[in-house]
Amino acid sequence: MITRKDLNPNLLDAEYAVRGAIVNRAQELEKQGRKIIYCNIGNPQALKQKPITYIRQTLSLLEYPELLNNKDALESYPKDIVERAKWILQKHPLGTGAYTQSGGIGFIRKAVAEFISKRDGIPANEDHIILTDGASKGVQSVIMALLKKKTDGFMIPIPQYPLYSATITLYGASQIGYYLDEQNSWQLNEKILTDSIEKAKNDGIDPVAMVVINPGNPTGAVLSHENIEMIIRFAQKHILSLMADEVYQENIYNPNYHFYSFAKVMHEMGVKDTPLFSFHSVSKGYMGECGHRGGYMEVRNVPDEVMAEFIKIHSISLCANLDGQFVTYLMISPPKEGDESYSLFIKERDGILHELKTKARIIGEGLGSIKGMTTGVPPGAMYAFVKLELPHTQDVTKMTPEERLAYDSKRDNDYCLAMLEETGICVVPGSGFGQLPGTLHFRTTFLPPRDEIESLVVKVKEFHEKYVERIKKLVLETVS
Amino acid sequence: MITRKDLNPNLLDAEYAVRGAIVNRAQELEKQGRKIIYCNIGNPQALKQKPITYIRQTLSLLEYPELLNNKDALESYPKDIVERAKWILQKHPLGTGAYTQSGGIGFIRKAVAEFISKRDGIPANEDHIILTDGASKGVQSVIMALLKKKTDGFMIPIPQYPLYSATITLYGASQIGYYLDEQNSWQLNEKILTDSIEKAKNDGIDPVAMVVINPGNPTGAVLSHENIEMIIRFAQKHILSLMADEVYQENIYNPNYHFYSFAKVMHEMGVKDTPLFSFHSVSKGYMGECGHRGGYMEVRNVPDEVMAEFIKIHSISLCANLDGQFVTYLMISPPKEGDESYSLFIKERDGILHELKTKARIIGEGLGSIKGMTTGVPPGAMYAFVKLELPHTQDVTKMTPEERLAYDSKRDNDYCLAMLEETGICVVPGSGFGQLPGTLHFRTTFLPPRDEIESLVVKVKEFHEKYVERIKKLVLETVS
Repeated sequence: MITRKDLNPNLLDAEYAVRGAIVNRAQELEKQGRKIIYCNIGNPQALKQKPITYIRQTLSLLEYPELLNNKDALESYPKDIVERAKWILQKHPLGTGAYTQSGGIGFIRKAVAEFISKRDGIPANEDHIILTDGASKGVQSVIMALLKKKTDGFMIPIPQYPLYSATITLYGASQIGYYLDEQNSWQLNEKILTDSIEKAKNDGIDPVAMVVINPGNPTGAVLSHENIEMIIRFAQKHILSLMADEVYQENIYNPNYHFYSFAKVMHEMGVKDTPLFSFHSVSKGYMGECGHRGGYMEVRNVPDEVMAEFIKIHSISLCANLDGQFVTYLMISPPKEGDESYSLFIKERDGILHELKTKARIIGEGLGSIKGMTTGVPPGAMYAFVKLELPHTQDVTKMTPEERLAYDSKRDNDYCLAMLEETGICVVPGSGFGQLPGTLHFRTTFLPPRDEIESLVVKVKEFHEKYVERIKKLVLETVS
Repeated sequence: MITRKDLNPNLLDAEYAVRGAIVNRAQELEKQGRKIIYCNIGNPQALKQKPITYIRQTLSLLEYPELLNNKDALESYPKDIVERAKWILQKHPLGTGAYTQSGGIGFIRKAVAEFISKRDGIPANEDHIILTDGASKGVQSVIMALLKKKTDGFMIPIPQYPLYSATITLYGASQIGYYLDEQNSWQLNEKILTDSIEKAKNDGIDPVAMVVINPGNPTGAVLSHENIEMIIRFAQKHILSLMADEVYQENIYNPNYHFYSFAKVMHEMGVKDTPLFSFHSVSKGYMGECGHRGGYMEVRNVPDEVMAEFIKIHSISLCANLDGQFVTYLMISPPKEGDESYSLFIKERDGILHELKTKARIIGEGLGSIKGMTTGVPPGAMYAFVKLELPHTQDVTKMTPEERLAYDSKRDNDYCLAMLEETGICVVPGSGFGQLPGTLHFRTTFLPPRDEIESLVVKVKEFHEKYVERIKKLVLETVS
């Protein structure tokens, strides 16, 4: 028999908060019949968002091409969808049933390169595109490939999406956290970056790559052009590879903000010596096709011999799943004006994005107006990272930084667990993403339907006020 | 700019022969207009095997549930398929669009446990099932989880499927090869196993797990009950975890052979202290749904605390793709007698298995009768691992074992590359799987259609004879 101590210590150390203890407790409560509002993870269709019709229509034809010979069935499909399915099956007659080349189907890689070219007005190389099972698998392959030794460091934002910290820990690399500047709309700050990298170097860490999530998870921030330029100069100066997690590029709700890809800004700056790995996914945007595990990574500024090694690492798992590859294709080439499916597509897309925008406002304004909570209206992504103030239960003035971190981590965990037990709302404690010592947060999605979001704001307010009262009372009792 | 030397040395060292240099060359030739017969990989639908209809019909309804409201379209679906799709969507209303729990959809894990129970007449625990993106991802998670340090050793068969060697190299573990007994139908041999593990221990390696592929890849062998018992006793004695790759369990063509799962034999023996990880996949069998990347792993004889870590490692990539999860469900619960779709299912299943059986015989007898080639008719899987004799071009008597290995590796690579260039047939050199020093092999699938297999045998014979003549002549010229 083996026990935990026989397992990889890196696995034991890895933590994945968005699927951690609080979520397990939520599932238990749900089994007991409690209604749970899952705000722990960006899983839109689990929160009643409807799939985009043209994607599913096309997939049904690709899965069962016999339908293309069934006139009665085809009556219910828009003509352009039928033509598109036929065209795909002409380009790739094997449909969904066979392994493809390790990097994915050729015509889809080409279409992705064209999408990037068109989006950014820059050249893109189809041979440097790899189709992946969601963005996660692409990210993991890059961390694995760039990791030469335990002391190789990956810079990641704090707060961050725990895929990064979990993978770095699991693969036995070193993490270099850099704090995002909460005072400045969660942008990156050059001084903080420099301090982080200098400290890491002093600690014997060799920085090799830097992760940037834009739009941000869990922050919902959108980086300015200027901020991205600063980051690229920083990476160039410190000879870092850049990993740009751009899965929320369609999720921007404030007209004052604009998505600039790292590829575009880097091209404009003429930077050709800094490797760039960009990730995109079908799981976010307005589609939320999380279950299809589709996505791609684009690689820039690496020689062919390096690209070949990235293809090899993906070849060991053969290839990304085919439905995911096709959804990726459909994501980057939606119906065009004049297509029969166009108007429904626009209606669905704009409907979802409009709802997300409204819900971002409700949650940002609603939670932000609660005494003891601070958050703006998130301009992007699907999350609010809400700052929290709670009365202290211990004297924090004499704590070491480690003790303070442990104390705060317990506090935000206790808070989120109590919120779950009392309201059925499942959010993730800030310590699961990382936060500045001495601050407390929680992350919530704003994906549930509008009425649930509205009632969520009310419930959170009630809960928070009671919780604060309870702690105050507890402290008084302890003191007296 | 980064170069190869900036990458993970384990990645540079990893080799994945079934997608290696010869396959790249085949793709180049194909681009130039040559007809290539891809016998390098078990990818049935790429070699004209048709998908099983009930699977694709069900998937089309799951992808686009609106079809269930379209009477005209449903006319062409068997009633049981329509009912099944409705039942699935009742059990899992989110269909294909959302992340699931990390281990996969609950009702499918339960169905897998019931499938194992029924197949083997033993109890099985749904909480110890994890749905995976193909078997590969399950295998990789186990190697990652059991690996504590560089000198931890994983015993793998030689010849083996290169997923194992590639993953062990990539993750920085140690490989302990054990030769399969070619003289004895490629069964495992206790003395060889003991010698291998003793040698490894003397070399400072700590054996932690042992991989067995049954039915065998690349050997096509089927292990006897007695052989499996021996293996389990061996693992128990040496405190090894067992990894049973059973993806070819449906692919047995000889009535004298029978598939016994490791789970069943272990249960019969009452062994409760040896951890067992068994893998199954939708990519093989009679379905060959490689593109859907579906599969599962079953875990036995580990405590809940260990199982929780396996769930965690899968949670870091969120969950397996949903179509793959549903195909896995459909694989283990095909149509039943009395269902409208039953007769077509049986016809398709038996048709494919009958063809595979016939083609195994054609390739086994055909290639086996060529002078200088040895192979039996493979009783299982999708491959023949053909032993080859070639005239020597160098004096081998003075070679060190390493020199001999390099010499043989060049010989079988040259041979397979020449076969590709001259016949368009793409097979994989034996050195890509490993082989006893001093022997040469190649692996070929017997998946292409029957007429192509027949012509393959003729072409290989012609090629082989010419190639041998050419080498003989070369040697004579060198000597004179």
